[in-house]
Amino acid sequence: MKIHHVGVAVDDMDEAIRLYTSLFGAEVAHRATSEHDGIEAAFLRAGDSEVELLRPLREDTPVGKFLARRGPGLHHLAVVVHDIDQALADAREQGLELIDETPRIGLHGSRIAFIHPRSVGGVLTELVEA
Amino acid sequence: MKIHHVGVAVDDMDEAIRLYTSLFGAEVAHRATSEHDGIEAAFLRAGDSEVELLRPLREDTPVGKFLARRGPGLHHLAVVVHDIDQALADAREQGLELIDETPRIGLHGSRIAFIHPRSVGGVLTELVEA
Repeated sequence: MKIHHVGVAVDDMDEAIRLYTSLFGAEVAHRATSEHDGIEAAFLRAGDSEVELLRPLREDTPVGKFLARRGPGLHHLAVVVHDIDQALADAREQGLELIDETPRIGLHGSRIAFIHPRSVGGVLTELVEA
Repeated sequence: MKIHHVGVAVDDMDEAIRLYTSLFGAEVAHRATSEHDGIEAAFLRAGDSEVELLRPLREDTPVGKFLARRGPGLHHLAVVVHDIDQALADAREQGLELIDETPRIGLHGSRIAFIHPRSVGGVLTELVEA
């Protein structure tokens, strides 16, 4: 198992970057915006993983609803898989509830898919193809 | 910045280990129990980080109360620091609310300290001295 990144929902991106930079010497590796998902993201280098800061562009988005319901904080855990089609087939065979039935392209340009937290002990889990 | 581990609160340790093993080929690196903190922990290798599965031994513990309030799921983010005394001094100087005013010994045998989620964008943050 390898952590690709840890997603953190934030309500103020500049303040979050300032905090991780001043506390932990974090560096922004890249930034991206997805109008489709309604999020702005900043990826901070963290060893061979990253911390992904996520800010919703609108309230009626998954991250916007998460913020309204739970407030800012840990949002998802992304794990590296080598073959995402096989990983999704395995997850389906185990009866897990998939949010993405087929892979889509994530903010990194990698193929990704989310598994519902109900199926992974309350953890919203993202598969990222290496 | 480097992620030391991601803490996940679970209500069934065996089921959680089975899930991470079958989904991601996770391996248990070590296990520990702290009567003081009222937790049983299993650390899963995840690249150069770990996923720490945490199960409360009693309801009247921090993780027991977390489970009662929010259910199982992502619990904390642990970040490597090289000098935890300096890191705590810096955090205090920035006005952050410390849960541990001085370092204590964690389940790994490392010196650790927690910062309150109110001060880190809703993320319960653990400092772990490398």
